[in-house]
Amino acid sequence: MINNIIITKLSIHKSEKGDLLHGLRYSDYGFQGFEEIYFSRISENTIKGWKMHTEMTLNLIVPIGRVRFNFIESDDKLKQINKRLEIDVHIDNYVRITVPPRIIFAFKGIGSGVNMITNVANLIHRDDETQNIPLERFEFK
Amino acid sequence: MINNIIITKLSIHKSEKGDLLHGLRYSDYGFQGFEEIYFSRISENTIKGWKMHTEMTLNLIVPIGRVRFNFIESDDKLKQINKRLEIDVHIDNYVRITVPPRIIFAFKGIGSGVNMITNVANLIHRDDETQNIPLERFEFK
Repeated sequence: MINNIIITKLSIHKSEKGDLLHGLRYSDYGFQGFEEIYFSRISENTIKGWKMHTEMTLNLIVPIGRVRFNFIESDDKLKQINKRLEIDVHIDNYVRITVPPRIIFAFKGIGSGVNMITNVANLIHRDDETQNIPLERFEFK
Repeated sequence: MINNIIITKLSIHKSEKGDLLHGLRYSDYGFQGFEEIYFSRISENTIKGWKMHTEMTLNLIVPIGRVRFNFIESDDKLKQINKRLEIDVHIDNYVRITVPPRIIFAFKGIGSGVNMITNVANLIHRDDETQNIPLERFEFK
């Protein structure tokens, strides 16, 4: 497990008309402020990553489909893995993952339909605080 | 058209790995602050509503599926319709709808797969500022 990542179980209110899925409240543990929300779809058997933010704290939620995340805490040169975490998120493991700056991450669509991540971020995306790291650098598990 | 409702066209970055869909930034026109985000699924040919919030401003986004919204501005007794708006939201009409307090609304799933609304709200849901109005009260168009 990586120290500063927070995994929070979220509740679902079942309804015949369509379920209501909780996401994030400003009073929740780990909330660092709100600047932007966006959605990232990820096709089955496709990987987006590796990425690392140097300032942004992410809140990752998967309201549709199934997504496998890999998180890595590395040395400062982004070469050596110190700790790693793999987690599958879907309706039966419906959690929010709060990811602090400097954690390297990638994610893979593992559902056959639409897989979608919502990111509630404390900063608007800026290229100058976003690093793209070649997928070959680390093994995706 | 109802005066204080704001409809904002959102951008989509197409990608073979999975599209990136914009949602909301704190610097966007009409943003009233962040307290909660949640997701509401709505089955095909099913209607949720009518509802009215007396304090909350909603930001409604449909990142998956197709949803028809009806909005009503009524008299204070919630009987007479002064103005109304019907709008279908989906990937080809990908907009954010900012709904101020005291607008009556309902929505219907019109896609055959998963239909899902994201609400980015300036207040945490409270029963004492939420009114449920019988669906029979007004015609859903």
